[in-house]
Amino acid sequence: MTVTLSATLAANEDIERRRRAGERVLNLAFGEAGLPVHPALRDKLAAASERNGYGPVAGASELRTAAAGYWTRRGLITDPELVVCGPGSKSLLYGLLLAIGGDVVLPMPSWVSYAAQADLVGSRPILIPAPSGQGGVPDPDLVKAAVLDARAQGRTVRSLLVTLPDNPTGRLAPRSAIHRLVALARELDLYVISDEIYRDLLHDPSTSFTSPADLAPERTIVTTGLSKSLALGGWRIGVARLPDDAHELRARLLAVASEIWSAPAAPIQEAAAYAFTDPSELTERVRQSRRLHGTLARAVHDRFVEIGASVPAPQGGFYLYPDLSHLRLGGSADVTRLLLDQHGLGVLPGHAFGDDPAAARVRVAVSLLYGDTTEDRLTALTSPDPLQLPWIAASLDHLSMGLKELSLASRERRPALVPTGCHG
Amino acid sequence: MTVTLSATLAANEDIERRRRAGERVLNLAFGEAGLPVHPALRDKLAAASERNGYGPVAGASELRTAAAGYWTRRGLITDPELVVCGPGSKSLLYGLLLAIGGDVVLPMPSWVSYAAQADLVGSRPILIPAPSGQGGVPDPDLVKAAVLDARAQGRTVRSLLVTLPDNPTGRLAPRSAIHRLVALARELDLYVISDEIYRDLLHDPSTSFTSPADLAPERTIVTTGLSKSLALGGWRIGVARLPDDAHELRARLLAVASEIWSAPAAPIQEAAAYAFTDPSELTERVRQSRRLHGTLARAVHDRFVEIGASVPAPQGGFYLYPDLSHLRLGGSADVTRLLLDQHGLGVLPGHAFGDDPAAARVRVAVSLLYGDTTEDRLTALTSPDPLQLPWIAASLDHLSMGLKELSLASRERRPALVPTGCHG
Repeated sequence: MTVTLSATLAANEDIERRRRAGERVLNLAFGEAGLPVHPALRDKLAAASERNGYGPVAGASELRTAAAGYWTRRGLITDPELVVCGPGSKSLLYGLLLAIGGDVVLPMPSWVSYAAQADLVGSRPILIPAPSGQGGVPDPDLVKAAVLDARAQGRTVRSLLVTLPDNPTGRLAPRSAIHRLVALARELDLYVISDEIYRDLLHDPSTSFTSPADLAPERTIVTTGLSKSLALGGWRIGVARLPDDAHELRARLLAVASEIWSAPAAPIQEAAAYAFTDPSELTERVRQSRRLHGTLARAVHDRFVEIGASVPAPQGGFYLYPDLSHLRLGGSADVTRLLLDQHGLGVLPGHAFGDDPAAARVRVAVSLLYGDTTEDRLTALTSPDPLQLPWIAASLDHLSMGLKELSLASRERRPALVPTGCHG
Repeated sequence: MTVTLSATLAANEDIERRRRAGERVLNLAFGEAGLPVHPALRDKLAAASERNGYGPVAGASELRTAAAGYWTRRGLITDPELVVCGPGSKSLLYGLLLAIGGDVVLPMPSWVSYAAQADLVGSRPILIPAPSGQGGVPDPDLVKAAVLDARAQGRTVRSLLVTLPDNPTGRLAPRSAIHRLVALARELDLYVISDEIYRDLLHDPSTSFTSPADLAPERTIVTTGLSKSLALGGWRIGVARLPDDAHELRARLLAVASEIWSAPAAPIQEAAAYAFTDPSELTERVRQSRRLHGTLARAVHDRFVEIGASVPAPQGGFYLYPDLSHLRLGGSADVTRLLLDQHGLGVLPGHAFGDDPAAARVRVAVSLLYGDTTEDRLTALTSPDPLQLPWIAASLDHLSMGLKELSLASRERRPALVPTGCHG
């Protein structure tokens, strides 16, 4: 059993401790959306404060109906009976792994908690690299052999997980990859768990989005929540859309939910029910958030490109996944430690996401750069040019400086190399 | 793995469905406190609606400090560092079973979720009857042999759980039993998990209360929450007090928490922090609740005694555990079904609590008799004689009538017996 705190939460607690102690550290490690609660949601929560009943395990019918409408408006016709709510999509993912059982195929890299949850429920993750330039999906060419191999060893493999768009890479897998994965899932009889918590944060809203549930509704479970799009991480609310006719899976998931968390907090459910109706004041807020996340992600991307890092252009969410291996400073743990201790840049090492520890890849979150106060964050949200706001410009300068120092330090530490090209 | 919904939640959903369909059913099955949220807590929640950060996994420091003060005022000096918060004490109990590992000794009968949770984490509960007239504690005379026997079979037994005061029996184990259990826990090197969620609802506030943590703070984990004393079941907030110096257990529990639920909802945590400071307006509310629960529990007790049931006098919480075996209507499932289908009385069967299915014991909750509206419930809370309120009197009449009919039906169904005494 895993006995360490989730890597993101642990890193965040460490960085915040350093900040309180007066260290100048940029928190680029934590996946919090970094924006305030919309006032309409605050009002809804206050109005729901009399709700103190446990309510149904699957969630209040208002919330399930609203979530069904959310998916239906996005092209995925949904019966509220298919919806199960939980205190965060994280809880639902845990409950699903427990309810489904067996081993799970995960993309590599992928969100730190998938593998840790699999470990907690006694299942073994099968990590399959994402195709080059993609993220959030295991390479279809490698999945089949890995699953057949695991089964030949007597293991039970029951599910395959994708993250659309992805954490940590910020990439969105193309429709072709989803098509091939879904075909494979059918061939191998696997559930597909599609974590779509960043879906509404695709930077370019005209990007075409394909959910495995669009193609294989009979075997796909979609999870989402309001932590990212509406910055409600601390409110702990998530929803899952189960496959059509998945009566047994639903019963098992509800059994698990009823023994672990009962239901999300009732007043939170009521506010979330409002949010999932996509009222215009909230879709406008999501639009602003998407724009801000995209602007910062591109700006940070440029800083890494400047020092020669290989970093896929971010498409959604608020993450980047640069590879600093060219600096030859060691693996992901080494470069993460150097960035934090020497340059005041708190990031997460790629190995926490299941990636090769020898590669110097790190995950960078941009969402804590928007400001330290509600006022600053709101200013960033509505600013025509957030990169010019003094506190954001200062953070980006801190980042640039830190990366340049790191790059310089690497040249000093490296033995002088005579470029081979000159002597060919 | 268990694939059924928690028995209490399932029974409640069934009963509420029948009520909505127009059936006249008294809900005596569900362990909801049946009272409104205190306005001060509603205000605190509304004021905390801007809180949207994930916060520390162990819980916000204000909440941990308040919970530490709660225990310290009750004679158990507590360092906030020993406190871990969760979305309900149910979640914390699940996390503890997972973090501690091994099999767990449970009292028989005991709350439905303990054994179900043990099953989910892959541990096997060892059910030990409570001593006669007691509840919530496994009989110390039987624990040692059972643990040694299980260990001789190669099983790992790591913990022992008590409920003080008890659900389902409404009884409080005496200090002598706690003393003996704690001595045994030391001898057998077991953690003691003490579920004290009904502690503030002892009907007679002068009742002496002994927590295993008072006697063995080095191995006792205490859990509590606000679901019962302040009727905040739907708010999902619980706290655990870990043993002194339990650094490894704390790390394991936080690891589990960080991968399953992250933290309780942040606005809820802030309101709960206020509640755990025991402000006078809330202690007055708890006093009124305790009085109402006790008054109704005694009134319902009398109804069962009238038909000759054997039923321990309730001491705390809002439950009774009558034995209707004298009616010879079958086991707990039979009598539960008869009560619901024939007499409109929804209760839970004793076997759901791990009790002998052949015994006609049922758990009766009185807390949903206080009224269907907030106004009625508040009236009941402050009434000098709640039993005379028309809606409560009508429910008690319904209960009396149902029990008398059941009793009569049993005489009709039973073959005429000539009392042996007359022919001796």
